[in-house]
Parts: sequence; C-alpha cells; structure tokens
Amino acid sequence: MELLGTSIIGSSRSAQGEKTFSGFNPRAAAPLAPAFYEATAEDLKRATQLAAQAAPILRNLPPARISEFLLAVKDEILALGDALLERASSESGLDTVRLTGERARTTNQLAMFAELVKEGSWVDARIETALPDRKPVPRPDLRRMLRAIGPVAVFGASNFPLAFSVAGGDTAAALAAGNPVIVKGHPAHPGTSELVASAVAKAVAKCGLPEGTLSLLQSTEPSFSIALVQHPVIAAVGFTGSERAGRALFDAAAKRPIPIPVFAEMGSVNPIFILPEALAERAESIAEGLFKSVTAGSGQFCTCPGLVFVVEGEGLPVLLKKLGEHFTHGLPGTMLTPGIAKAFEDHFQKAASVAGVSAHRSAAAPNVSHTEGQPGIIIVDSKTWFENDPLQHEIFGPSTILVLCPSTAELLASARALSGNLTATIHATPAELPGFKDLLDTLTEKAGRIVFNGYPTGVEVGTAMHHGGPYPATTDSKFTSVGTASILRFARPVCYQGFPQEALPAQLHDGNPLGIWRMLNGTLTRD
Amino acid sequence: MELLGTSIIGSSRSAQGEKTFSGFNPRAAAPLAPAFYEATAEDLKRATQLAAQAAPILRNLPPARISEFLLAVKDEILALGDALLERASSESGLDTVRLTGERARTTNQLAMFAELVKEGSWVDARIETALPDRKPVPRPDLRRMLRAIGPVAVFGASNFPLAFSVAGGDTAAALAAGNPVIVKGHPAHPGTSELVASAVAKAVAKCGLPEGTLSLLQSTEPSFSIALVQHPVIAAVGFTGSERAGRALFDAAAKRPIPIPVFAEMGSVNPIFILPEALAERAESIAEGLFKSVTAGSGQFCTCPGLVFVVEGEGLPVLLKKLGEHFTHGLPGTMLTPGIAKAFEDHFQKAASVAGVSAHRSAAAPNVSHTEGQPGIIIVDSKTWFENDPLQHEIFGPSTILVLCPSTAELLASARALSGNLTATIHATPAELPGFKDLLDTLTEKAGRIVFNGYPTGVEVGTAMHHGGPYPATTDSKFTSVGTASILRFARPVCYQGFPQEALPAQLHDGNPLGIWRMLNGTLTRD
Repeated sequence: MELLGTSIIGSSRSAQGEKTFSGFNPRAAAPLAPAFYEATAEDLKRATQLAAQAAPILRNLPPARISEFLLAVKDEILALGDALLERASSESGLDTVRLTGERARTTNQLAMFAELVKEGSWVDARIETALPDRKPVPRPDLRRMLRAIGPVAVFGASNFPLAFSVAGGDTAAALAAGNPVIVKGHPAHPGTSELVASAVAKAVAKCGLPEGTLSLLQSTEPSFSIALVQHPVIAAVGFTGSERAGRALFDAAAKRPIPIPVFAEMGSVNPIFILPEALAERAESIAEGLFKSVTAGSGQFCTCPGLVFVVEGEGLPVLLKKLGEHFTHGLPGTMLTPGIAKAFEDHFQKAASVAGVSAHRSAAAPNVSHTEGQPGIIIVDSKTWFENDPLQHEIFGPSTILVLCPSTAELLASARALSGNLTATIHATPAELPGFKDLLDTLTEKAGRIVFNGYPTGVEVGTAMHHGGPYPATTDSKFTSVGTASILRFARPVCYQGFPQEALPAQLHDGNPLGIWRMLNGTLTRD
Repeated sequence: MELLGTSIIGSSRSAQGEKTFSGFNPRAAAPLAPAFYEATAEDLKRATQLAAQAAPILRNLPPARISEFLLAVKDEILALGDALLERASSESGLDTVRLTGERARTTNQLAMFAELVKEGSWVDARIETALPDRKPVPRPDLRRMLRAIGPVAVFGASNFPLAFSVAGGDTAAALAAGNPVIVKGHPAHPGTSELVASAVAKAVAKCGLPEGTLSLLQSTEPSFSIALVQHPVIAAVGFTGSERAGRALFDAAAKRPIPIPVFAEMGSVNPIFILPEALAERAESIAEGLFKSVTAGSGQFCTCPGLVFVVEGEGLPVLLKKLGEHFTHGLPGTMLTPGIAKAFEDHFQKAASVAGVSAHRSAAAPNVSHTEGQPGIIIVDSKTWFENDPLQHEIFGPSTILVLCPSTAELLASARALSGNLTATIHATPAELPGFKDLLDTLTEKAGRIVFNGYPTGVEVGTAMHHGGPYPATTDSKFTSVGTASILRFARPVCYQGFPQEALPAQLHDGNPLGIWRMLNGTLTRD
C-alpha cells in the first residue's frame, strides 16, 4: 500500500497543511519518505464534527456489532501483512521479530475486547425493581449501567507503534465502550499510523459504521495536541508517554470550562528491592534477570526497572561482579528516535556525574549514526541517592541505578521516599518476606502492581492486570491502561428510573435477554 | 452534651484559633452559642499527621472490623438522641421531622456500607493463576483487588447537615473503603458537626481504631479549604455544594504537584420535558407533582427541577392554570442560611427581570426575619430562554422556569443546548415515547439519571442509584455520590504478581476464605 503522507479523517484523506514532517529511520539515521502533512485547525474541526455525529450511533449499537467491528479491525491490520511490520521497523528501529509480537498483542487486544463486549457483563448493570408499597415512600424501578462517555482522543506512544498507537490498547478500549476515537499519531511513526488508520477505515466501511468512528490526525505540534484535548467535543483522553507531555495534557484538560478526564500513563522508575536472604541465595540469577529486564527493548518499556535497592551483605559481591559482567557484555541497541537516544545519554551522564557514584557502561561503544544507546549501570550508596535528585527520576533507556543500603531500615526509608510507580518488585525468600510487612505495605501505597521474585517488564494483557499507579505513574490511579478493566476509563453510569422496557437498552430488560451478569435487587445473577 | 466550639482532631479537642464564628438560627434570625474556633494551620498539620498514621492500619483491617466500626458510628449517632435533631434544626431551619428522616438516611447509609464491606465483593477481585507452560511466555500468577486510596477530605454540605456532612455519605463511603477522613465542617452547622464528630470519636475508641480515623476541622475560610485539598497527605476529596466552590477545590487539586481526584457534586437544573400526549392527558397531576418537587425542602435539594420544557398544545392552559394556583397558595419556607435566601431572591429577580418573561410568586409574603424564601415560577418562550443566560442556570431555592416550546423540534433543540445534569425527566405516554428516541438519547448524554413520569427529588440510596452526571453536575461523571457504588471513588486497584498466599490480602487467597465474588481466570465465581 502506498503511503500518501496524510491525516485520515473519517473516510477521507487530508493533505491541507502547509507544513510537513517526515518519519526517520533511526537505524539508518535517515529520514523516510513520504513527507507527512501537519494536520490543520480545519482538519481538527472536521474530525471532531464526524466524531460528534458518530457518537450517538456507536453508543446505541448492539454489542454484537461493536464486537464484529473490533474483529474486522483485527483482520484488516493482519491484511496489511509484512508492509506494516517493515514500515514500523524502519520508523522505530524495533526489529520485525519484536514487531510481529507487538502486532499479535495488538490484534489479541482487539479480540479480547471483542469477546468482552460480546459477553457484555462489563457494563456493571444494576437493577432495583419497584417496591410500590414500601413505607414511608415507594421505591421506583431503577436500572443503571455503564454507557459510552463520548469521543475519545488517543495519543500514540513512541515505544509501542502498534500496541499503543492508532489501533492499540487505548483505542480498542474506547471503541469497545462505544466511543468514536480521534488519534493524534505519534510523529515518530507517521507511516505506521497511516497504514493502521487506513485498515481501521476499511473495517468501518465494511461494518457499515459511521465514518467518524476513527480519525487519524498527524501532527508534531504540541499546540495541536492541546487544541485537540481542549476541543468541546472530546470527552476523555488516553495517553502514554513522558511525564512532561502527559502533565501538559492533564493541565489543559483541567482548565477547560468543562474539564474532562485524562488517562495518562507516564513516568515510572519501577523499583526493585532485594532482601538479604534472596541476595545470599541467588545473587547470580538476580543479576542475570535484572540485566535482561533493564535492557529488554533497549530499556524502552514503561516497566523498565530503573532503581534497585539492596542491603549490603552476603551475596552483594557476587551481585556486583555478575552485574558488571553482564553490563560489560551488553550490546548497544537502536533507540526509537535520536531525541530519545540523546535524552537517555544526557540523563545517564548527569546521574553518572554525581559525586560518589560509580558508573559502568558496556564495553562496546554505541554506533551513534545508528542511534544506539549504550547499556549502563550506576552504583551509589543510599545516602548519596537520597541527596541527589538526578538519581531519583526515570532515565528512559537501558540503564539502572543500584542503591546500596547499609541496613533494612535504610531500604525501607528509601521505599517510603519514592513517588508513585507502575510497578514495584521484591526479591525475597518466602521465609524472610513476613519480616518485611512494612515494605510490602509501603509498596502497596506506591505502586499499581507488586511483583514477587520476578521482573516488571512483560505486562500480561488480561482480566487481572493493573497497569497503572499513583502519580506520576499515571494521572488517575483508579484505572489501568492494559487489560479488560481499561474499558472502564471510557464509560460512565446512567440510571433509568421508571422507564418502560422497550425504551431501555437490552442490557437492562426484564428476563436478561443478553444473559449478562447483573446485580438484581442486591444479588449478582445471570437470571 | 455540651458543645465546646472546637475542632475535633483524633481524640483531642482543639480551640487554638484566635478567630471564632457562630452558628446561626435562620428561623429566629439570630446567632447561636457557643462560638466556634477557626481551625489553624497547626490543627491541619496535626489532623493530617494522625490521618497518615491511621491510613496503613485502616487499609489492612479485616473487613469485619470496618463493618463493626460503621455500625458503632451508627449507634453513637443514635445515642445523641434529640439533642442532635434539635441542634441541627436550629442551625439549618429544617424541621425535626425532616431531620429525623435525614438521620435515618444517615444511619441507613452507615449500615448499608457495613453490609457491603462485610459481604466483601465490592473489591472487584480478579485472579489469573499461573500458566508456567504457556508459549511463547509463561503467565505469572496475577491477583488484583481494590484497596484504600488514602486519607480523604470530606466537605460538609449545607443542605444535608447529617446525610452529607461529618458522618454522611462521603464519609461513610471513604471509611468503608478503609480510609481515614478529615471533614471540613460546613460553617452553617458547626454544632451539628461537633456532635456527630464526637459520636464518631467514641466509636473509634470503642472499636480500638487509630484516633486519626476521623478528624473534624471547623472553618469558614476558603483558603483553609484550599490548604486542606492541597495538603500532600490528602489522596482524594468528596464535596457537595455550589459549582463555584466545587470548581475552586477541583482547580486547587489539579494544580498540586501530585494531582488528586475531587468528587464534587455541584450545580444541576434537573430539566423536565413534558411531551404532548402526557400534557393533554394529565396536565393537572403534572402541575401538582411539579409544584411539590420544586418546593420540597424549600427547593434546597440538588435534584430540584429548575427547568421545565413543554410543547404548546392541548393541556397547556390547564398546566398553566394549575401551576398558577399551586404557586399562589405556596407557603414561604425557611432557607438554610441568610446567604442562600439572598442568593435565591437575587437570582430569581434577575431571571424575572428578563424582558418577555412572566413571573409569578406565592401570595403569602416571606417573613424575611425568618429567612424565608418565597416560591415562584417564571414562564418564558423558548426563544427568549435560549437568548438569556440568567434563565439557563440553577436558581437554588423553591422556584422553576417553565419554557414554552412552539414545537417538539424546539423542545429537542433546548435539550441539546443543556449542560450536564444530575437528572433529566420525561413525562410522556408510553405510546408517544418511542417517537422521542432522539430526546432520550440526548438526555442520556446530558444526565446521570433519567426519570420517566416521575420527579427527580427523592434519591433512592441503594445499589442501582447513580447520583452523578456530566459537568457541572459533578467533576467526575464516572462516579456516584449516593449508593453502594459511591465507595468506588475512594479505592484503587493493586495487582500482586507471584506472591505467596500468606503475604496476600485474604480476598485474594486460594479457596476464597471470605466467600466473595471474584473473577477467576475470566469467570465470575464465589468458589
């Protein structure tokens, strides 16, 4: 399929912009054809008009139609074939093996939501039937369920050009809930975005849905993103990226005359705590697992463990030696963009230049003309870590900071000093874990997911996942951006009082024709 | 029980403030003894310290202990006896019959949450057991449930001195979820607040809970409210009141370095739409029901219907005649505070002075020295309504605006022009309702609860209620402030990966020892 360098607004292409930008191949350090037109204010107007028209239609579709549509999107993405993987690889520097896996995650997510919507119980239907004779006042018939929130703006993420971009997790969840979506494509992969949006447009046409079901706006301008978030038609926002950009969107949404929710998944240092017995028992395997988790995908996962706290004691020399060996042999890897590669290096150097730390890089020098990042580890005592801000924040890339604590009290104090995180991890023997209740409890307060004797990278997509956490991990710790529960971001309850059956959504009808789980007069039932 | 005019911080009294304020009896138009000390910055510091200490203890309590505590609060409130009703009546102008009902609602809410917590399924537990042999990667054991969000600031509401104040719906929901609460008492009923907070303190002591479980801070200063919302220890806010005050708290929370959610239930005009056949059939009974709903509690309910849209046609003369009669015979009623009475009169006069409207007041003049509000109705054509802002906003008090639409198209256009609301109501015959799908759909977008052939006042407290709605009805349309689902405001998911059983909360144990509903490998079950 030939790329046209356009935004895709409903069923039309738009190339109105006077300015253009290009994708960039980080492995070749070269721009990619074609040039992409920056979306204009007129494009935004048209996309929001179409979304507003689509919203009531999508909201009222039978769940089976939404489900079919999500599966059609899946099929159209697969039908793009290798062209999609190749373009995504050129634009992101990620290899096609990884991208094949990411495509599978993307299509699995669509299938997962198709199944969730078809099953139907996610709407949390609650019915209280009338009690006309109740004293002192009768009870009316009340029927409440979740309904679509309205048009959702989704911002593509640089590090998941498929799974968190045009038809990624946020979009799938928003569509599944019955909302139109306007995607602001990430400028690092405009071609990938165009391909996927064209696939979605095909699915929209095949399923007979309104063309405003999804639009893709291509832009590099922060002001355009703000205008999208502040447009009156937009009802909610999904975002994955940096704390700076996420906070800017959050602030813009909070300042609207009618504020809207922003579900931004942002920065996280994903701390790991290694307790004494675990260290003594298996320092070597922890070193290996840690190195793999830190350098997976060149350290460009939200869940990359950027801080490791360890109590000095038996096993520490082995841990240090093995970590040294792993990082020495670590291979530089292509980063997503030159900007990300530079930021990684800058932040690493800033941390490495703090007095009292020791920094260790891989032996192989990075090929800068291939936009490579060089794995590295910084070792610091907990007192120095406490006192130096550059050691406390996320360094996005293949590095971690190992903090040596003189005592378990110091380790606990470090945990208490942390900000919010997507994940926190404890390595411990089952025998010593009960002695660290305070640590587990502190991490319960600080993180969305707590991992025992594992590594935070590798986020399972299912019903029990929570990929979220206290700020700055996200702007709303009550919601996940991964798994079935992520649909709850894009719906709100509506209660119908005293309505005749035929005016109600099928989910609330007597006799439960859709066979969903409902809370009926206080009892959960499928009857 | 003698009132001491203090804040109640944990188990201590504080009378540090140099400034004082007093309650006011609106019926007697006279201040009430004693003077109350304004809470100080030191009081806030102490209350937040105690809340921070209490948070991990409450979070980890067995559900049965929380449940017992809520019932103990109920008992202690009842043990205050008539003194509570009398003080609340003096401070609010509400009669003791209404307040006896409101006390019952308050204690019923506590009992409802006690039952919800004891039953336990509200935590939305989701378990995916490990699949060690899954290809290409194993699935880890994942167990996710809702946990307490952290210390909650609750702002008492003037119009519900019991049910939305110190131990009202927000507090009950926050405590039930396992959070400490700091209440900023409403300055209109400081004595009622002191009595209820002292009852809670007794329950805290009897149940052996940490003293920081609840504190009451008495203040009239907006800057104190902002300081409370911006205190780093506070994790969420519950508020019921005006749009202006709610938005100020929302803005303050959004500007924090670490933003927190504000669940503010604010302004709502609660529109009613009377369709032609219903008007022709039962104009007289609609006039009666509408008048009762508008003037209930002197129009000081969040759900008071402030706008009524009707299509000119058969039945309209009867509706106008009967409404005229009802309002003529309407009796002035005591308003909550002189400020509310004045604001009501000012806003009504402003609306009544718009060119082209006709306004009608009750025959009986209000006794201003009894802080009375005079029932009133304004009648206006839809064109004039569209063009005049003072006719479009909530007028808090016993009045409504009847908008005459020349056609059903005009009625629909009016619905589309509305902002968000807690409720919207349709009066229609079952036969004509299917012809107004667009109207119902528009109201689904604009309101949290849609009432058929009823009136919005009288909010059922149960599982199926949604008392919320798009802005400005609330600052977060995804949550209700009434009913069991309101607990969801004060909890967030935490996912445990790979942990040994004994380190997990009982809700997530194998074998389901608490017998709660859980999503186990994708299937809802109590096994």
